[in-house]
Amino acid sequence: MSYTPYRIAGASAQQPQSQSLELHPDRLFPADPSVRALCRSLYEGVRDLPIISPHGHVPAEVFHTDAPFSDPAALLVTPDHYLTRLLFAAGVDLTELGVGVSTRARPDPRQIWRIVCANWNVIDGTATQLWLAQELVELFGIAVAPSAHTADAIYEQLEAALADPEFRPRALYKQFGLEVLATTDSAVSALAHHHALDRDPSWSGRIIPTFRPDSVADPENGTKFNSHLDRLSELTGIDTGHYVGYLEALRQRRADFIAAGATCTDHGFLTADTTPLSDGDAARLFARARTVRVSGADAQRFRAHMLFEFARMSCDDGLVMQLHPGVLRDHNRDVFERYGTDVGGDIPTAGEFTRALRPVLNAFGTVPNFTLVVFTVDETSFSRELAPLAGHYPAMKIGAPWWFLDAPHAILRWREAVTETAGFYNTAGFVDDTRAFCSIPARHDVARRLDCRYLAGLVSEHRLSEEDANRLAYDLIYRIPKTVFRV
Amino acid sequence: MSYTPYRIAGASAQQPQSQSLELHPDRLFPADPSVRALCRSLYEGVRDLPIISPHGHVPAEVFHTDAPFSDPAALLVTPDHYLTRLLFAAGVDLTELGVGVSTRARPDPRQIWRIVCANWNVIDGTATQLWLAQELVELFGIAVAPSAHTADAIYEQLEAALADPEFRPRALYKQFGLEVLATTDSAVSALAHHHALDRDPSWSGRIIPTFRPDSVADPENGTKFNSHLDRLSELTGIDTGHYVGYLEALRQRRADFIAAGATCTDHGFLTADTTPLSDGDAARLFARARTVRVSGADAQRFRAHMLFEFARMSCDDGLVMQLHPGVLRDHNRDVFERYGTDVGGDIPTAGEFTRALRPVLNAFGTVPNFTLVVFTVDETSFSRELAPLAGHYPAMKIGAPWWFLDAPHAILRWREAVTETAGFYNTAGFVDDTRAFCSIPARHDVARRLDCRYLAGLVSEHRLSEEDANRLAYDLIYRIPKTVFRV
Amino acid sequence: MSYTPYRIAGASAQQPQSQSLELHPDRLFPADPSVRALCRSLYEGVRDLPIISPHGHVPAEVFHTDAPFSDPAALLVTPDHYLTRLLFAAGVDLTELGVGVSTRARPDPRQIWRIVCANWNVIDGTATQLWLAQELVELFGIAVAPSAHTADAIYEQLEAALADPEFRPRALYKQFGLEVLATTDSAVSALAHHHALDRDPSWSGRIIPTFRPDSVADPENGTKFNSHLDRLSELTGIDTGHYVGYLEALRQRRADFIAAGATCTDHGFLTADTTPLSDGDAARLFARARTVRVSGADAQRFRAHMLFEFARMSCDDGLVMQLHPGVLRDHNRDVFERYGTDVGGDIPTAGEFTRALRPVLNAFGTVPNFTLVVFTVDETSFSRELAPLAGHYPAMKIGAPWWFLDAPHAILRWREAVTETAGFYNTAGFVDDTRAFCSIPARHDVARRLDCRYLAGLVSEHRLSEEDANRLAYDLIYRIPKTVFRV
Repeated sequence: MSYTPYRIAGASAQQPQSQSLELHPDRLFPADPSVRALCRSLYEGVRDLPIISPHGHVPAEVFHTDAPFSDPAALLVTPDHYLTRLLFAAGVDLTELGVGVSTRARPDPRQIWRIVCANWNVIDGTATQLWLAQELVELFGIAVAPSAHTADAIYEQLEAALADPEFRPRALYKQFGLEVLATTDSAVSALAHHHALDRDPSWSGRIIPTFRPDSVADPENGTKFNSHLDRLSELTGIDTGHYVGYLEALRQRRADFIAAGATCTDHGFLTADTTPLSDGDAARLFARARTVRVSGADAQRFRAHMLFEFARMSCDDGLVMQLHPGVLRDHNRDVFERYGTDVGGDIPTAGEFTRALRPVLNAFGTVPNFTLVVFTVDETSFSRELAPLAGHYPAMKIGAPWWFLDAPHAILRWREAVTETAGFYNTAGFVDDTRAFCSIPARHDVARRLDCRYLAGLVSEHRLSEEDANRLAYDLIYRIPKTVFRV
Repeated sequence: MSYTPYRIAGASAQQPQSQSLELHPDRLFPADPSVRALCRSLYEGVRDLPIISPHGHVPAEVFHTDAPFSDPAALLVTPDHYLTRLLFAAGVDLTELGVGVSTRARPDPRQIWRIVCANWNVIDGTATQLWLAQELVELFGIAVAPSAHTADAIYEQLEAALADPEFRPRALYKQFGLEVLATTDSAVSALAHHHALDRDPSWSGRIIPTFRPDSVADPENGTKFNSHLDRLSELTGIDTGHYVGYLEALRQRRADFIAAGATCTDHGFLTADTTPLSDGDAARLFARARTVRVSGADAQRFRAHMLFEFARMSCDDGLVMQLHPGVLRDHNRDVFERYGTDVGGDIPTAGEFTRALRPVLNAFGTVPNFTLVVFTVDETSFSRELAPLAGHYPAMKIGAPWWFLDAPHAILRWREAVTETAGFYNTAGFVDDTRAFCSIPARHDVARRLDCRYLAGLVSEHRLSEEDANRLAYDLIYRIPKTVFRV
Repeated sequence: MSYTPYRIAGASAQQPQSQSLELHPDRLFPADPSVRALCRSLYEGVRDLPIISPHGHVPAEVFHTDAPFSDPAALLVTPDHYLTRLLFAAGVDLTELGVGVSTRARPDPRQIWRIVCANWNVIDGTATQLWLAQELVELFGIAVAPSAHTADAIYEQLEAALADPEFRPRALYKQFGLEVLATTDSAVSALAHHHALDRDPSWSGRIIPTFRPDSVADPENGTKFNSHLDRLSELTGIDTGHYVGYLEALRQRRADFIAAGATCTDHGFLTADTTPLSDGDAARLFARARTVRVSGADAQRFRAHMLFEFARMSCDDGLVMQLHPGVLRDHNRDVFERYGTDVGGDIPTAGEFTRALRPVLNAFGTVPNFTLVVFTVDETSFSRELAPLAGHYPAMKIGAPWWFLDAPHAILRWREAVTETAGFYNTAGFVDDTRAFCSIPARHDVARRLDCRYLAGLVSEHRLSEEDANRLAYDLIYRIPKTVFRV
């Protein structure tokens, strides 16, 4: 066993023998007693509303098979790149956490859990610790703080819980109060698990797919681009060897997704550029991309063009378009080569939206059927670009603070940055965007607490009546996401 | 009639029948009782100071003719692009608000007002709602919150008020406590209304022009560039067919503006670049711009050169130079073509100042007679560039948070971002920058409250004595703007 | 004598006859009574910890000679570019402050002090005033606020204090509670004063050098580049006429620095770019740079390459690598030509790290012996780039807010921006980075107060137990800087 607890620079060598783990009912509320009371009252009005989860990464298969979760580490640690990235930064090898290894080669999950607990202080002050602590207390009834001393006892309690039928995915879905949960799915997914759930009379929840066509619109996606386009032909019976068929096949797949319940698309290119090409240029570039390796500049031109085309398709078929630009994926080449994508090595870059979105907003920004939700990992764009744009174009909404920005103070900074310019009704509502199924209630609870905190602040400054704040809390948490994402 | 109340995504369908509209005396003050008391005490010392308004867009004609305002919508809605942009984002056609239509085609103003009231919640949490609410209560004595139910009753109360001579422009000027109000005027304006006011013995206020030469220094300004230069010749009797005459005519016009009371110029190009050309290059580029369409790059070079030249002229004639860069004008081409400029479709971009201002600051940054006030719509530049620059160059002052940044929390963020690096005395004081005349007292009141709040915070942290805070409140609100803008 | 008190625009003409100068024990703590009590309790646990100063600019000579400070102005004003820059912005000539003048031509220090006092309000609200006030009160027992009226009385008290042996450098070192103080030294420094201190049996402190090779790695450094490289040959006996010898000589010098106690290097190029060249390209470019003036682009390529090489050397010899990019040095050419470098005319620029650091982090980001501490003057990069990078790569730590960002509210913004993404243990601890020796205790005290304030905030939000907060306060202030900087 190679890990050392606290190998991270400067961490205290001593963990206390045992510290209690508690959730204070007023957590995340402001300190001032009068504002705290106000905040608590607003929160009580929205705490138990159903959860709308219009954007996330829990696979539909989980609910289709409804198989029990194999062990605590597989549920709480290995798939959560928020957690594994910080442990990696603390010097823990991802392999030790079960990342990127076959089931057979998987380390003892108890050992994975020990690493997490021994390094618990590494995540002090992060959103990850907040969510995980809430899961441990609320879901599993854990009452002691994770540490090297308490790891095994906690593990046994978690393991026992997972053996209970109440901890199977469908039961948790109900317990969490989910009204709808959107998955994120490749444009070439057959959506087999979604269809199976639809046909299953014993299933009463709502799991809907999201159309994510990045791999079939990015010529730089290596051999995947062509193989996914071939698969697109198979699925639709439409020849994707030429540009017109390609667009037609995409439209067909969107219709398939809609038939399976989808209400949204999602797009994660590095930039938000939406400059269209002429049809002729697009067709020629597509043809080249199908046969040879195009330059980076050409690939970028094609991606921008396709964002424009996807917006046009949304005007036709009503799928809400979500943009998630700005992340430089797989920054650490070695980690990418050893463990693959989505394991914590993606890093934000500065974003530009004013010029990038101009083509799409000029063309479709007032089309009644079109909704464009724009997310960013660069918080400087909130007050400078996203709020001014959403405060003008009817089609555009500002996405919730995303990824590195979904933590408590970042969420408050976001509300501060956008509200005064764009109001509340040009924002889109919280999305949890998570692969960690059990973190969903905690993430939404944190978001609800912070929306109430922001509103309580405005009431305490006499900018809003309490009556208005109650209405806004309800709208922000429930009505707006339902309406914007059409779920 | 085509508008639907609450067509904006997610807004609650129900508005209360009637909610009161009140201005709490402690609005915008912090919640902590001891800091609030401190803040209130500071505010009491500055609340009634005369208003210095060194930068705005209310036309001098309003005071020259002193005609009664035609109706509530023409006064409070149609010219206020802060308000119309958010209604447009909510799906209201600008035509319905009277924007860009002839007087004859103007919709019933009562109907315009109904749209505003029915969509009141769209502006919850914005600065616009704060200002408008204060105008309604303080100026017009309205006591119920705008809503679909109360729209007509409020309208009638507003209409009745406007019939009163107390609500004519000159009377309001006095009532508002204005000491000086600067307008913004094209370099080719004859300043007829300013001259008429000067000659009017019954007028005792002070309305001064501001020299805004953008249209005569931007070769990309289409046919306007040449026609305005021709007009410049007519007004000055100086041939603007060549570069030397052009500069001379500009100097002459500045002298005309100074004679009419002007103390400032204003410049609103997209970038802050101030790189000069050689005289020869400038003359050649000017000659070409007069005869053919120059490239975008050449136009940019000329604009940058002219900012440098305008700074040089300011060193000579003492006009304070205001820079307002960073706004991409008329982002929405369709809105621009249908409604023209300044109707809410301008969007900020990221700003750069360290390199852009270097030429002008190296050349003139220590000239005693030169003052350069720099504004930005990109708040990231406050702590990174503007405060460090103003904390070094004697000529430079940091402009108040502008446009999308003139809201309460944005103003606090601004003070936080600049004070610790540049102190208070390198800032320039609040400017309301408004086309909405009646919002002037509310805008200044909000700014005063926030300056007091920031100062009260420093006192509560024991970084400032109460005595110092009182002196600073007076200086920030009254002495500094008077001195910086030389009014 | 040419200065005018309050020549800065808008400052009140009246200073009070006499105002007391006091340090409130709760300064910088939050206003809410319960959070303040918490904060005070945390602070009491760390207030008296020894000071770790791993990065600064006080010369070793000061301690070697232990000569008394010549006068108050030479100690407190002339070397402090934080202060002189704000006085310069207020219209004070740097010569009047003794900057850049020979000892012979130096103005009467009493007169310098009068200028500072008469302009005391110019620095209201800045970190500089906070530090200076604390020095005056704690170190010198001054009880009246500086003003034109009190300048002479304060000066006499300061002068009297400096005559006391307790105010000689070594005595102050002890009094300040310094455990270690790092200087910053050119790669071609012989470190004579460090060696002399090592040999001095009467000296028991710890003054260690820092290896700063900017001048020998920057071909744009004019004739200095070649002359410093020649000096490098002299010091090492290795031929720096060719690339291989050059690298070898640098390695040798690093070993010399390590022998003299160094634990860190420091690098202050404009950009953070770390893109390496091939060995052949690097050798050819080096050869050209030794003989002709290379282009700006080539110089930039060489600097980026050398950052990569310095990182490689750090992996071998264990020197912690500090990056301080983003500052455009000597922005004001006239000031640079008259007064030289480091007198307040350096201005930040927007920073980019995600792409710039990728080469070095991909190559060495998981090397156990490598530590890279990254500073920035662009606070937008904290949440967007530095925290995500440090939350993934084990080698990287986020440097404390630097230079224009080392003020109270900026420090709080920094903790807010990085903690939720990277936790506490991926930060590096406070560095005072000062040339003003007497400001060291005040600067560290301010930083300690703010770390406690941030932690108290988390406790009050129930995100952290008080026990955890106490552990974190100790780690942040003492254990982490000791570990990260290896002192």
